Amino acid sequence: MRIDLNSDLGESFGAYTIGCDEEVLKYVSSANVACGFHAGDPKVMLKTVRLAKERGVSIGAHPGLPDLVGFGRRKMAVTAEEAYTMVVYQLGALMAMARTQGMKLCHVKPHGALYNMAAKDKALAEAIAKAVHDVDKGLVLYGLAGSEIIRAGEKEGLLTASEVFADRTYQPDGSLTPRSQPGAMITDEDKSLSQVLSMVKEGKVTALDGSVISVKAETICVHGDGPKALAFTSRIRETLEKEGIDIGPLK
Amino acid sequence: MRIDLNSDLGESFGAYTIGCDEEVLKYVSSANVACGFHAGDPKVMLKTVRLAKERGVSIGAHPGLPDLVGFGRRKMAVTAEEAYTMVVYQLGALMAMARTQGMKLCHVKPHGALYNMAAKDKALAEAIAKAVHDVDKGLVLYGLAGSEIIRAGEKEGLLTASEVFADRTYQPDGSLTPRSQPGAMITDEDKSLSQVLSMVKEGKVTALDGSVISVKAETICVHGDGPKALAFTSRIRETLEKEGIDIGPLK
Amino acid sequence: MRIDLNSDLGESFGAYTIGCDEEVLKYVSSANVACGFHAGDPKVMLKTVRLAKERGVSIGAHPGLPDLVGFGRRKMAVTAEEAYTMVVYQLGALMAMARTQGMKLCHVKPHGALYNMAAKDKALAEAIAKAVHDVDKGLVLYGLAGSEIIRAGEKEGLLTASEVFADRTYQPDGSLTPRSQPGAMITDEDKSLSQVLSMVKEGKVTALDGSVISVKAETICVHGDGPKALAFTSRIRETLEKEGIDIGPLK
Amino acid sequence: MRIDLNSDLGESFGAYTIGCDEEVLKYVSSANVACGFHAGDPKVMLKTVRLAKERGVSIGAHPGLPDLVGFGRRKMAVTAEEAYTMVVYQLGALMAMARTQGMKLCHVKPHGALYNMAAKDKALAEAIAKAVHDVDKGLVLYGLAGSEIIRAGEKEGLLTASEVFADRTYQPDGSLTPRSQPGAMITDEDKSLSQVLSMVKEGKVTALDGSVISVKAETICVHGDGPKALAFTSRIRETLEKEGIDIGPLK
Repeated sequence: MRIDLNSDLGESFGAYTIGCDEEVLKYVSSANVACGFHAGDPKVMLKTVRLAKERGVSIGAHPGLPDLVGFGRRKMAVTAEEAYTMVVYQLGALMAMARTQGMKLCHVKPHGALYNMAAKDKALAEAIAKAVHDVDKGLVLYGLAGSEIIRAGEKEGLLTASEVFADRTYQPDGSLTPRSQPGAMITDEDKSLSQVLSMVKEGKVTALDGSVISVKAETICVHGDGPKALAFTSRIRETLEKEGIDIGPLK
Repeated sequence: MRIDLNSDLGESFGAYTIGCDEEVLKYVSSANVACGFHAGDPKVMLKTVRLAKERGVSIGAHPGLPDLVGFGRRKMAVTAEEAYTMVVYQLGALMAMARTQGMKLCHVKPHGALYNMAAKDKALAEAIAKAVHDVDKGLVLYGLAGSEIIRAGEKEGLLTASEVFADRTYQPDGSLTPRSQPGAMITDEDKSLSQVLSMVKEGKVTALDGSVISVKAETICVHGDGPKALAFTSRIRETLEKEGIDIGPLK
Repeated sequence: MRIDLNSDLGESFGAYTIGCDEEVLKYVSSANVACGFHAGDPKVMLKTVRLAKERGVSIGAHPGLPDLVGFGRRKMAVTAEEAYTMVVYQLGALMAMARTQGMKLCHVKPHGALYNMAAKDKALAEAIAKAVHDVDKGLVLYGLAGSEIIRAGEKEGLLTASEVFADRTYQPDGSLTPRSQPGAMITDEDKSLSQVLSMVKEGKVTALDGSVISVKAETICVHGDGPKALAFTSRIRETLEKEGIDIGPLK
Repeated sequence: MRIDLNSDLGESFGAYTIGCDEEVLKYVSSANVACGFHAGDPKVMLKTVRLAKERGVSIGAHPGLPDLVGFGRRKMAVTAEEAYTMVVYQLGALMAMARTQGMKLCHVKPHGALYNMAAKDKALAEAIAKAVHDVDKGLVLYGLAGSEIIRAGEKEGLLTASEVFADRTYQPDGSLTPRSQPGAMITDEDKSLSQVLSMVKEGKVTALDGSVISVKAETICVHGDGPKALAFTSRIRETLEKEGIDIGPLK
């Protein structure tokens, strides 16, 4: 039994620092590296690639919407062509950065609003999947388990990674409870950990209404922005290892 | 005898159009494609790559300073590391765009202020040459004939293309007469054409002071921004062909 | 009887030129000046203010979403606070530019997607109206006739200008037929002109389904991007003048 | 005897936080608020204006070069017209933000590379001074004591504030020792404090070569980026107060 732990890294920008990248790289198996549209800049990208290489962590592109001030979290009405080209662009930029260090990208995970829109919007999901395919069909496409982006990736013939969340509750239809609704976040760490174990070991999660639903868990999104998040990420890793679950990238 | 004709293309941005790319592609053998920092955007890049492919024109990256409002023409005090990473980033973005169309990049030509600074600043020139080398050592590095960037490219083991200008006069030391000085531009088309022929056929150019100096001419920069520029570009091509000079990319 | 003719100006950016500002200024009474977020830059803003002053045309701010590559035409999920602060910011920037030329702003008209969102989203409309009020309550707020932004302006105690379109058809509820639907645009110039006259003189417009509805027409949006648009703008002005309708700003 | 303590504030951007603005506002009499070009965004600007108002601290504009990724610290070859319009633009944006809170700007202090270039480049200094004058001639122009920007401000008829530094050494000609040279920074806090007192009380500073030179000290730049900087800023304030020197804005 194997699971991937992924985290969003390389989100610093110019004089601005976000996240404890060096710390979180101790716990994860895959690093999603920001590509300069919602966060990150060329120097930060190079530094992040180097850190991941030192730590032996797989790297992937984390393309976002062109909205630096909004950190890529604000939905934008982009066309399929715009989504396609912005993913190709960002992917290529990181790919070249990786090449300078003798590394290769392993995956692509859309960021923020692009991730959320691609989970529900079929045309957008297909544009993103096609962008990944057209640049390198060996890349693994990460996306919300059970969502449009996973279907689009499979249709395009890509390997996909179904992502689950430790700190979010699920709806009976398998979608995440929107953050705007009560009960969206799981604040009790023990509850989080048992949700993780249930998803990874049994492929099941208890939805907010108490019903038990199926979920495919191939990668877990963890965070490193602050001591508390780091400590919890460390606990997730420990718990999984104690259960004999292997932690590593999908490919 | 062979010469390359190159032109800066793909400089439109969003709702803004610059240049007559479709027209100029009829005359050139190499297209320098803007990569989004000083001009261009992902959609424009894709469109430009497609047009070049249709026309059978070689493509290369045209990386610039991060200064859209200044069109990359304003000198900025960037460090060698910043120059290195911004070239890697832009090169990679265009490389991925080319891959989606089954094309490969052939060359890299820095744009505007980055081009001019790299002609004189050894550390900057070496950072740029190293960026090109580290991403793909098969790329040809374009730069001002006889300048630091050509030396840096050679030192890095890259193939280089020494660029000459049809409409600019030269100083006795082989540098271009600065635009701010009288006599910098050649406005007489016939004079321009004979300068081109002398540079291509004999490797000689008459400097502004009347002295005849050596110049290595492997590629000529031509323009397509407006009917007059296009007509002159067409005349240059015709003249070269009449002289039996083959027009094509260096590699 | 009086009507205002307004047009979006100052949309050039850096090396990029859009529109024939000098020409269109001959026909309009109010210029909506882009403020650097979706189009325009500080130099262009100053130039536009100077041109409007020479022509005796009223100026107003034309704030947009922070989306230069999308020209402010892509909807973005901005919060009310973000809308408030981005309008204050852009308004202030233009206001200072006007001050350097001894001019004062007369109005504010949101641009593109911000205009369209503010026509329907009450919270956004109120945030924009409050921004205008808090900076200068003497400014006139321009918006789609009969829409949320007009109501928000009135509620805030601002003078408002109900805007109508010459080249768009209306729905029975007074909204514009979305561009994505057939019949959205009026391509017959004579039809356009009679719609304008009916709106201005009688406050009536025939909706796409044939029903006649009321519409408040205080300002008409005209265009100057290209010879054809300019010619039609000139015809609208002539037609109105022949009918004895005075053309001038609201205030 | 009176001195102003100023600090650069409002430099956060979107999801990125820099500085301890709430803390440093306890010690300073003037806040230089970033205006969105090198740092800051509309929401941050509004928040900073509100915080300064609560604390009774004077606010001024802190305009910078359009270089967010470089934090406005990289010299750029901007023209006088570009400098003029970018200062007008940023000044106006903050001015409107202040108006919404019933506040008025008191001063303008160029940021980073713009500050340094304006200290030496007469044409640039005059463009900036004219921008300030043309927007509001009641504003105080802050700049390096004894430099071109102070002369330009006086020539323009503006009130100026000669700025001195606690942690930098001076050259015999009154300029700051460049950071690239040894001995540029004063790391001993007691030395810093005695330099401050000597400059404020006697208008004298001991240059790096031991010579004693005259310096006009009207405002001192202090920092709040981190606990150490804050503690030293607090010590500067305390020391000045103990000496019976009044701390407050120039106007």
